[in-house]
Amino acid sequence: MTIRDHIMIAHSLRGEVFGPAQRLHGATYVVDATFRRRTLDDDGIVVDIGRAADALRAVLAELGYRNLDDEPDFTGMNTTTEALAQVVADRLADRMGGLGLDSLVVTLHESHVAWASYERPL
Amino acid sequence: MTIRDHIMIAHSLRGEVFGPAQRLHGATYVVDATFRRRTLDDDGIVVDIGRAADALRAVLAELGYRNLDDEPDFTGMNTTTEALAQVVADRLADRMGGLGLDSLVVTLHESHVAWASYERPL
Amino acid sequence: MTIRDHIMIAHSLRGEVFGPAQRLHGATYVVDATFRRRTLDDDGIVVDIGRAADALRAVLAELGYRNLDDEPDFTGMNTTTEALAQVVADRLADRMGGLGLDSLVVTLHESHVAWASYERPL
Amino acid sequence: MTIRDHIMIAHSLRGEVFGPAQRLHGATYVVDATFRRRTLDDDGIVVDIGRAADALRAVLAELGYRNLDDEPDFTGMNTTTEALAQVVADRLADRMGGLGLDSLVVTLHESHVAWASYERPL
Amino acid sequence: MTIRDHIMIAHSLRGEVFGPAQRLHGATYVVDATFRRRTLDDDGIVVDIGRAADALRAVLAELGYRNLDDEPDFTGMNTTTEALAQVVADRLADRMGGLGLDSLVVTLHESHVAWASYERPL
Amino acid sequence: MTIRDHIMIAHSLRGEVFGPAQRLHGATYVVDATFRRRTLDDDGIVVDIGRAADALRAVLAELGYRNLDDEPDFTGMNTTTEALAQVVADRLADRMGGLGLDSLVVTLHESHVAWASYERPL
Repeated sequence: MTIRDHIMIAHSLRGEVFGPAQRLHGATYVVDATFRRRTLDDDGIVVDIGRAADALRAVLAELGYRNLDDEPDFTGMNTTTEALAQVVADRLADRMGGLGLDSLVVTLHESHVAWASYERPL
Repeated sequence: MTIRDHIMIAHSLRGEVFGPAQRLHGATYVVDATFRRRTLDDDGIVVDIGRAADALRAVLAELGYRNLDDEPDFTGMNTTTEALAQVVADRLADRMGGLGLDSLVVTLHESHVAWASYERPL
Repeated sequence: MTIRDHIMIAHSLRGEVFGPAQRLHGATYVVDATFRRRTLDDDGIVVDIGRAADALRAVLAELGYRNLDDEPDFTGMNTTTEALAQVVADRLADRMGGLGLDSLVVTLHESHVAWASYERPL
Repeated sequence: MTIRDHIMIAHSLRGEVFGPAQRLHGATYVVDATFRRRTLDDDGIVVDIGRAADALRAVLAELGYRNLDDEPDFTGMNTTTEALAQVVADRLADRMGGLGLDSLVVTLHESHVAWASYERPL
Repeated sequence: MTIRDHIMIAHSLRGEVFGPAQRLHGATYVVDATFRRRTLDDDGIVVDIGRAADALRAVLAELGYRNLDDEPDFTGMNTTTEALAQVVADRLADRMGGLGLDSLVVTLHESHVAWASYERPL
Repeated sequence: MTIRDHIMIAHSLRGEVFGPAQRLHGATYVVDATFRRRTLDDDGIVVDIGRAADALRAVLAELGYRNLDDEPDFTGMNTTTEALAQVVADRLADRMGGLGLDSLVVTLHESHVAWASYERPL
């Protein structure tokens, strides 16, 4: 089961490989979170979609409308689309453990032509 | 005829109406530029798609990978999605005048759930 | 400026032209509401996106998760995609008047291959 | 190889977890069916796309334009998006066996912000 | 009311402006046909969606799975996306006249980054 | 990490299973290339997106704006969407080896209702 939400952030990236993205800029990330389990629960669902949406909203609220360069959590790391997909997945896993879910995939779409995913067990 | 491209920028917005978007954050804008004319030219086109794409790319390159709060062109104005749609349209009009086109619409998609358009004559 | 939301409803349609859709069935409508004005306001926006989203959410909440065949408001009318686009637009206009907006377009997407729009002044 | 089609159904869901979706409502499901095989056949394809599309159409025709609450096949089960993805996959598997295919994934999109998939061997 | 369908064609374009597209190549056109009328008919619709879809399918069937360079109808003209949008619109108008419709817009999407529309009265 | 690009080609397919697609026609393929690795590199990325985009562009440039029926590389094979996905993946693998990547998926979208993927190690 997959739900979609989004955030808007500012950041810069360190390393020559990033070219002009070394300058302070920003991104809208359209975020898809996929929860997987082997068999459906007694209600016939993977997970309560309201609960999942609230958890995703809460994780994204900690990141959104911020300059990630100023966030202590990200000191010394590049907040690339790939790295942020892992951050969102890990934080979402913290909130969605113990519910019988098997795994989680988080995809961050940075534009209509580029996106990145991170998959982990739950 | 419409072509699509995108930019990634940082900015903040001034005014209580913007809530958390008053903080420095950013956006990916997926940009659609529509060129209109009453009748097609002798080649059967509205405009050379390569020329239009180059012009759009050039206009967006002046904005992208930047913190718009630091750009002199935007001093004293809010760089909202609506305002930037007008900026892109006006700058594109400067580059695409004298080609027999009648009007131009620029749409900036800021997420999967919000976008803004600006229409003007050419 | 356009915002997107959605509703899920049940209904049936009366008239041979509707074929199997005369049976009780349902639809997800992905709803786009476009607000237009000639010039931006002092904040550089068409309308407060939060206020517009709340108004759209309120209008859709009156319709969603319901069997429209049982709603007194729709007695004697077919709740086609086209008709519902008008209902949503008119109800949204009631909530968004007096804000200096010029017109409103509401589009209801009923699937990946069919949608309907209704446009009216504000 | 993936093909897309859709259905429109009415249903209600039993269980407090579903909130307002316990009321009779409905959904458009945009349905993606993915057929997989290790190596392509002699024609260079995974499966005859026409045959696959006909099979998917036939499976969906048994479900579409109906109130699933009244369907004997679904007595005692919740027709959630997840459960219906499995129903479509299983019925499609019945029609597409013996063709050398290895597995099948069915995804039902219930809106622009939520979808569910079911994967099974063929 | 808008419906979507598609065709796949081969063609080449004459004129230096087209660069490599002067070579024989091809395109998938995802085609949107929008029918407009001032007020809905007695059934609450713009037009019978089945009839409109059949008409669009018929128009596209005359074009699809063909090399347009070999079609007598297109001798001496460039089958650009813009020109084909007009061809589809005109042929659709021939089939959908006398139904009380006011106007028609046909959009041909040639890729995820380019499309063209043609609008005409009905 | 996934990037998107596109090509436009002409071709015909041999075999009764293809029906009207046995005639010379064409397609736009919207191409998604996904690069996977177990852990991110020191820059926090899967791969330099610029390098990946250039490689994909180069692979597609060898195919685009051509009649694939005339290409010696494809003599005796059907250039189906599935087969071309493998061709693009294999050629992209040649250009993107030795970079620590684990696997590659290439998806070719032939329309809004059909697409095909090919996955291989890197």
